[in-house]
Amino acid sequence: MSKAVREADNGKVRIADSFWSRIQEKVIDIVIPFQEKVLNDEVPGVAKSHAIENFRIAAGLSRGEFYGMVFQDSDVAKWLEGVAYSLTVKPDPGLEERADDIIDIIEKAQQPDGYLDTYFIVKEPQHRWQNLHECHELYCAGHMMEAGVAYAEATGKKKLLHVVERLADHIIDRFGPEEGKEHGIPGHQEVEIGLMKLYRATGKEKYKDMARYFLEERGKNPDYFYQEKLKRGWQHWGQYSTEALDVSYNQAHRTVYEQEEAVGHAVRALYMYTAMADLAGTDGDKRLYQACRRLWDNVVDKKMYITGGLGGNSEGEAFSGNYELPNDMAYAETCASIAMVFFAHRMLETEPDGVYADIIEKELYNSTISGMQLDGKKYFYVNPLECEPGVSGELFGYKHSLPVRPGWYACACCPPNLVRLVTSLGKYCWSESDSVIYSHLMIGQSAQLEKADVTVETKYPWEGETVYTVMPRTAEAFTFAIHIPCYVNLDDERVSLTVNGERLDIREREKKGYVYITRKWEAKDAVALRFPMEVRKAYANQHVRENAGCVALLRGPVVYCFEGVDNGETIQSLRIPKELKAEAYLCEEGVLKGNVLLKMEGFRMVGSEALYSEKPPVKEKAQLTAIPYYTWANRGENQMRVWMQESV
Amino acid sequence: MSKAVREADNGKVRIADSFWSRIQEKVIDIVIPFQEKVLNDEVPGVAKSHAIENFRIAAGLSRGEFYGMVFQDSDVAKWLEGVAYSLTVKPDPGLEERADDIIDIIEKAQQPDGYLDTYFIVKEPQHRWQNLHECHELYCAGHMMEAGVAYAEATGKKKLLHVVERLADHIIDRFGPEEGKEHGIPGHQEVEIGLMKLYRATGKEKYKDMARYFLEERGKNPDYFYQEKLKRGWQHWGQYSTEALDVSYNQAHRTVYEQEEAVGHAVRALYMYTAMADLAGTDGDKRLYQACRRLWDNVVDKKMYITGGLGGNSEGEAFSGNYELPNDMAYAETCASIAMVFFAHRMLETEPDGVYADIIEKELYNSTISGMQLDGKKYFYVNPLECEPGVSGELFGYKHSLPVRPGWYACACCPPNLVRLVTSLGKYCWSESDSVIYSHLMIGQSAQLEKADVTVETKYPWEGETVYTVMPRTAEAFTFAIHIPCYVNLDDERVSLTVNGERLDIREREKKGYVYITRKWEAKDAVALRFPMEVRKAYANQHVRENAGCVALLRGPVVYCFEGVDNGETIQSLRIPKELKAEAYLCEEGVLKGNVLLKMEGFRMVGSEALYSEKPPVKEKAQLTAIPYYTWANRGENQMRVWMQESV
Repeated sequence: MSKAVREADNGKVRIADSFWSRIQEKVIDIVIPFQEKVLNDEVPGVAKSHAIENFRIAAGLSRGEFYGMVFQDSDVAKWLEGVAYSLTVKPDPGLEERADDIIDIIEKAQQPDGYLDTYFIVKEPQHRWQNLHECHELYCAGHMMEAGVAYAEATGKKKLLHVVERLADHIIDRFGPEEGKEHGIPGHQEVEIGLMKLYRATGKEKYKDMARYFLEERGKNPDYFYQEKLKRGWQHWGQYSTEALDVSYNQAHRTVYEQEEAVGHAVRALYMYTAMADLAGTDGDKRLYQACRRLWDNVVDKKMYITGGLGGNSEGEAFSGNYELPNDMAYAETCASIAMVFFAHRMLETEPDGVYADIIEKELYNSTISGMQLDGKKYFYVNPLECEPGVSGELFGYKHSLPVRPGWYACACCPPNLVRLVTSLGKYCWSESDSVIYSHLMIGQSAQLEKADVTVETKYPWEGETVYTVMPRTAEAFTFAIHIPCYVNLDDERVSLTVNGERLDIREREKKGYVYITRKWEAKDAVALRFPMEVRKAYANQHVRENAGCVALLRGPVVYCFEGVDNGETIQSLRIPKELKAEAYLCEEGVLKGNVLLKMEGFRMVGSEALYSEKPPVKEKAQLTAIPYYTWANRGENQMRVWMQESV
Repeated sequence: MSKAVREADNGKVRIADSFWSRIQEKVIDIVIPFQEKVLNDEVPGVAKSHAIENFRIAAGLSRGEFYGMVFQDSDVAKWLEGVAYSLTVKPDPGLEERADDIIDIIEKAQQPDGYLDTYFIVKEPQHRWQNLHECHELYCAGHMMEAGVAYAEATGKKKLLHVVERLADHIIDRFGPEEGKEHGIPGHQEVEIGLMKLYRATGKEKYKDMARYFLEERGKNPDYFYQEKLKRGWQHWGQYSTEALDVSYNQAHRTVYEQEEAVGHAVRALYMYTAMADLAGTDGDKRLYQACRRLWDNVVDKKMYITGGLGGNSEGEAFSGNYELPNDMAYAETCASIAMVFFAHRMLETEPDGVYADIIEKELYNSTISGMQLDGKKYFYVNPLECEPGVSGELFGYKHSLPVRPGWYACACCPPNLVRLVTSLGKYCWSESDSVIYSHLMIGQSAQLEKADVTVETKYPWEGETVYTVMPRTAEAFTFAIHIPCYVNLDDERVSLTVNGERLDIREREKKGYVYITRKWEAKDAVALRFPMEVRKAYANQHVRENAGCVALLRGPVVYCFEGVDNGETIQSLRIPKELKAEAYLCEEGVLKGNVLLKMEGFRMVGSEALYSEKPPVKEKAQLTAIPYYTWANRGENQMRVWMQESV
């Protein structure tokens, strides 16, 4: 096995999509400028960031103290990466110039030996590299590498790329398996992703080797962080203690080859899996790919909310036990769902299997974008599947789970992560091998690929029709492969695949979730995929305690939910009929305009006033409305549920 | 309104009951001696108590430092109170002698001014009475008063009674509404109960007045604790801060007349309500009784688990919001259910209304005794209605909710509280007014009451037949009133009330949950109450999110639950049929021997292996077994649920 495909060039994809263009616009017009102001401390009422000022001080351009989290630098890096992608979506010379200026400062802040972390440069120079467990130096480095690579790809300007090469070289000098080097590993994985990207951008094997080192060293010595703590004798967070650490939180409890269950902090885990999958594909490393697949299967088969949410345990923002998926207490961090897209993307490059594209779709249309208010102005970090005002965000166990998006956090991880996802959608739409163009997602666009220009027209996810117009760049035959979502029933007569109107046998051409069409392509050859969009009911595995007796509704990749504002009070008393007839309709007004909503006849259980009664509740007919999950909490604080009791 | 009835003399009731005698035996033979050893630091492996040693040191009989919680003294007080009741149930001269010895030490520890709290006598004499909010001096005083009264009643020995009178006088000297006195209130209510008992034992109005003062002062100045904190400038728990306090935790946010919702720490609240009800009845204070009734209604109608559990919020061991009753995260402290018995008992004395006796029954047969392992050796503080091994006791949100009883805690509140409840059952069985004997509970016994000796024969709660044999002490006519549990349907022909075999019209004689029989009683007049014992289904109010689609099973006062050990794995996949035919049978072997269990034909939903599937689960027939809730977790760690999905 070797990396089957190449990633699409985000800069050569122009999204023009009824669903995504609006969201790209919001992140480019609202989130990026807002975050820029935050980084520059220009937003009254938002916690001081000081992140750019920290670089200025480190560069000797300004005087003052470091301020912020130990990982404050990563906010600048993530913003720059987002800016890079956004410049490919919507050029903005003023923004580019300001980003260039910040990169100049970063370059000046870098130390002669290549070290770059303003917390330690400014505040604790004597403590550099002593606390990999807590202090995020490698994490910040990884994000800066991603930014350097993205910025070079987007603008052709290599200043930041050279900065991060020097930084990576510094890291390689210090860490590694060789005698005399520190056998360190990062407390928060991320540098592995950065190193893999740096390898691809520069072609220098040493960066890939370093990524492999960090991945393979992990868990070899489960006491590494504990020994590091005893050695340095101080703690960054909390008091110093000589207690051993639970390093399953950091996925350092055993080697990546021995990890069979997804545990600990979900984002750390998924960043690690992403780098593992990237390396497995790049090196054709079957053993590592198997390790990835074991973890993938555990996540997808036992630890994922139906929305794509990841992390059932708010303590440690972590994966919970198998099937332990509380709806109202979910952590389901926006960043974890974004990280799952990264992971799936790398798995897909290694083996074009529809299961990966299906998860990318699930994440994109549900638990990632639910993080952003429809107007782009406020953000959820936590994406629960049930909300109860007065409980959510207030009571013990639920304090993390807010009923409305609160705006910008001091720890600003999710909004910039959403920015970089949404502005780099092109990467996730396509990959190419020497002989195949793979279409993974149905998103309206024109894309300049290696073998062809392809225009995609679609109203997905609301309608099940997508037309690809192919303008080949080669007279040679090649294969065009299109992902068919897992919910499409290929035995349904209404499902059709045509080339220039001529129907192909879809069953015959389908393999692992893709249909393959090989031919000598002519200009304007039109491939059309059509399938019915129906409201589907999903049932959870019987091991999931929370969903006993419940169903969730989906249409296409979109998971639906019920809110109090549409359905009245005590939405837990509503019932979905066993024989459901739901009507999908386009919402034409209000904040949900443009979304397809569902209406249906259901029931409301009307019971006794008493707290407990022997009188069974009575079933009354009720008109119910469901909305796309990602649009919840856009109409004020109210009840919300994804999983509804079924009436039978 | 004035106190309608007098409390029964516990010493004149001899319980001889197939259900309760075993439990009394366990607490007398196992819990009391075990706690005695703990108090004397004679149990290896149990956290050091030092509680008696603290008194010795305070008395000058030993040298050393204070050790333990700031409320360590209360462990000795609660043990002595339990010993007092147990001596009336089962005389034990050795135990009595050892208790006398401890009382001698306590007397010597008391300071010349009447002050008695070993923490402050030994450790921080300069800080006496400066931290009512946190330091439990009044709480410990209240428990010592209850012990002094109980010990005098049980043994006729008044040494401890005199100690607590001097202590109460000292408190009266220091606190009160008068100018020059501190307008203090306790951080943890309890002294009010002790003062009311002291009033009844001594007839001295000043103690009742002081109870009224503490109750009525509460909430008048909601900032009292905050001002106290600023004044003293130190904190007992945690760091000193100048932040204002949330005094709804202590029910000090408004006056008792203005409190309409049960909030904060459940045990504190219920101890306060108990004293309020006692005072309301004693003084015939209608306004105070109304205040009690408002809080009662809120608790019973909106905040009580079907098991009688109280406290839906483990943070603060507190009441949660109305209808917010999570089953697996319940706090439902054993002590809170015991406190609810105290509250109901005082309400019942004020107004003989079956609603109070019904709650006493609910608590006695469910959420109080569930706190004790069937062998008397281990204890739950938390009594959840759902248990999931691997989650309960382990994950965030569930850490308080253990899957098996763990034994003795460092903070030993619940076991001694259970001791004093179970050994004083006689108090709760009867009350008497000048003209009426009220029977509140159906417990086998012989009782010497004022107007008659009554022998009660019954197999309750397993069978619905109770025979009272009356031996009157007076030739005058009097009324015998028997509580009919709320679940008995008086329209059912099978329900009968007879005197010497002659059927009475039960409907005509029933008023607020009691049937009244007035006659000139002859020796051996036999009153028999018979009603069918059927398995009943209960439905929760639609506002209770957790119980949507669910039913709970009851038989008599006993709530049932389902455990994995009887029903296989994933008990959330089981379904109770809408048309339930459950068979009750006496368990004849194993640890559950002597309990009536239920077996029934139900269903198991068998679904896809996938985490989510569009294939509806299939309903398969399954034999289900339910056991009394109080007996759960006696057969190892396994799943448990009270509320089960109904199949329809």
